[in-house]
Amino acid sequence: MISKRIRELSAYKTETTPCKVKLSSNELPIRFPEEVKKRIKEVVSSIPFNRYPDPQATELKEIIALRFGVHPENVVLGNGSDELIQYLSISIGELNKGVIYPIPTFPMYGICASALGREKIEVPLQEDFDLDLEEFLSVIKEKAPAIAFFSYPNNPTGNCFSEEKIRRIREEKVFSVLDEAYYHFSGKTFLKEALSREDTVVLRTLSKIGLAGLRVGILIAKEEIAREINKVRLPFNITYPSQVIAKVMLEEFYFLIEEHVSMVIRERERIMKELSKLEGVKTYPSDANFFLFSTAYPADLVHKELVKEEVLVRDVSYLPGLKGCLRVSLGFPEENDAFLEALQKVLKRLC
Amino acid sequence: MISKRIRELSAYKTETTPCKVKLSSNELPIRFPEEVKKRIKEVVSSIPFNRYPDPQATELKEIIALRFGVHPENVVLGNGSDELIQYLSISIGELNKGVIYPIPTFPMYGICASALGREKIEVPLQEDFDLDLEEFLSVIKEKAPAIAFFSYPNNPTGNCFSEEKIRRIREEKVFSVLDEAYYHFSGKTFLKEALSREDTVVLRTLSKIGLAGLRVGILIAKEEIAREINKVRLPFNITYPSQVIAKVMLEEFYFLIEEHVSMVIRERERIMKELSKLEGVKTYPSDANFFLFSTAYPADLVHKELVKEEVLVRDVSYLPGLKGCLRVSLGFPEENDAFLEALQKVLKRLC
Repeated sequence: MISKRIRELSAYKTETTPCKVKLSSNELPIRFPEEVKKRIKEVVSSIPFNRYPDPQATELKEIIALRFGVHPENVVLGNGSDELIQYLSISIGELNKGVIYPIPTFPMYGICASALGREKIEVPLQEDFDLDLEEFLSVIKEKAPAIAFFSYPNNPTGNCFSEEKIRRIREEKVFSVLDEAYYHFSGKTFLKEALSREDTVVLRTLSKIGLAGLRVGILIAKEEIAREINKVRLPFNITYPSQVIAKVMLEEFYFLIEEHVSMVIRERERIMKELSKLEGVKTYPSDANFFLFSTAYPADLVHKELVKEEVLVRDVSYLPGLKGCLRVSLGFPEENDAFLEALQKVLKRLC
Repeated sequence: MISKRIRELSAYKTETTPCKVKLSSNELPIRFPEEVKKRIKEVVSSIPFNRYPDPQATELKEIIALRFGVHPENVVLGNGSDELIQYLSISIGELNKGVIYPIPTFPMYGICASALGREKIEVPLQEDFDLDLEEFLSVIKEKAPAIAFFSYPNNPTGNCFSEEKIRRIREEKVFSVLDEAYYHFSGKTFLKEALSREDTVVLRTLSKIGLAGLRVGILIAKEEIAREINKVRLPFNITYPSQVIAKVMLEEFYFLIEEHVSMVIRERERIMKELSKLEGVKTYPSDANFFLFSTAYPADLVHKELVKEEVLVRDVSYLPGLKGCLRVSLGFPEENDAFLEALQKVLKRLC
């Protein structure tokens, strides 16, 4: 009695090979000092676990609004951005209207569309990883999709698409979701447009700024739009521990997050410069906390050899347009050094 | 661009009036002793919050399987049962096939159906709160819904429906979801059938046994069915803190949960007996950790007067067939006594 749609899906898979140096999930490298742990212990031990959490997550929403420069009325929280992508896939347009997005990109846009039986309209990126505007416009004319998802910067390519192209696509009456999960590393945003327009929303998350374990995704929209999306939100979707821990982190320890974000941006410059010195290694420009590189050798082989050196990166070479590519998240300086060393060893071994 | 379906929804509302004695949300009365808090602090402070949680929640699933007498392969976890109801509403049958359930019942079945644009087929309960089998069979013949939801025992009426009627309805090729959120207070279950049939699943939850704040819902099904539902599960839907705290509670402190469940069952007997002595008060039999009662006065008035006495119960009198009814969750003995006293005061004041 399970629908055919679901039978044809495959479950989402993640890279979980255990390695000493894990640079595969675009997490922020941060170790919480004792004072943070102490505060977390305090707030957690005061939680009445037998009670439902605040359905509005009022206090958490207030501090998030403050940190992200918006009002609480502009915010809808999700159990990670994943859940917000699902809510948008449910809410925007009729379900017989499709969902459009460039590929390769974050797989969740397609997964949510498939589960709901919505047509997935996938437009390959240009060779430079920017949007193929002509193809977008032509397929929109033909299929009139209701929503477009833009990972901005794009996972896994690392670049921000041309703003003008996104705006031009939006003119075709496609509700545009700017998934700015990596905003802190790019500084580029459609926030103002999300706050002033009815056809644009921005997604942010705490997952890439040190709190992936808490699962807090953030949708930012004009109040009227936020109110509508909020109707499909499951009433108690942010757990009690996540509400109180995220609040304390954003209120009292935001400086730590900012410090580590800056460190990652610095490391991105450093490591990409180092890599560019290695013969046969090609890197791709990045606005994110990860970047793509390729070598003269098959990606799956390099991946396997790096695992032997206890360094885990993500093999994305099976994705369209990414032949030979691996994705590396930036870690602590010593982890990035370990990656550099391991890569050099592997390249020497393979040649 | 928000769909009409969503514009027509209203957001889920919960009773949040602050009162000293809160008997409105069917939570378990339990205060965690210092040793529990100590263990929770220990496990929480060891969480690397910057990391994504285990997408399979492997360790939590193992202890849940053990406590509920099934195998991990039979279990799908949700961010509360709410999310599992949503997954089922997405997965079972085509979306143009309806969802059937008796009313009044837990509102989430209807909310999830509406959000997806599925037809809601609502069959009023008989006067004794059991299923109206004839009406079910006739409307199934006409509309061929894909799924039936049975809250077992039913929220807010408190009773378990006739098993034979549920089985008879299922014979009509309707995928049957037994929402056994209150199983610990009823002892009645369709677990065996969920494990052996492809048309039956059982929902359980940690929310009614002391851990509502963690949001852990449990779907139990035959392995083949669990595997399919798992495909629509968002990959990191159980937060890191919820995974580790729920695990420690079920592993090390399950005896505390069992003690408090027993206390609630004893209190249910005691309080309903006490109430039956009050003139003009009618109670309804309950298999849950809450029960319905009515008085000679309008329910909204009694509700308001109880709030003045600092006792919060749920006014359910607006629901079909529940004219005059209020729903009370069982609390600690002293909270239940406070409710009894408050009610007596209110009745005296009103007469």
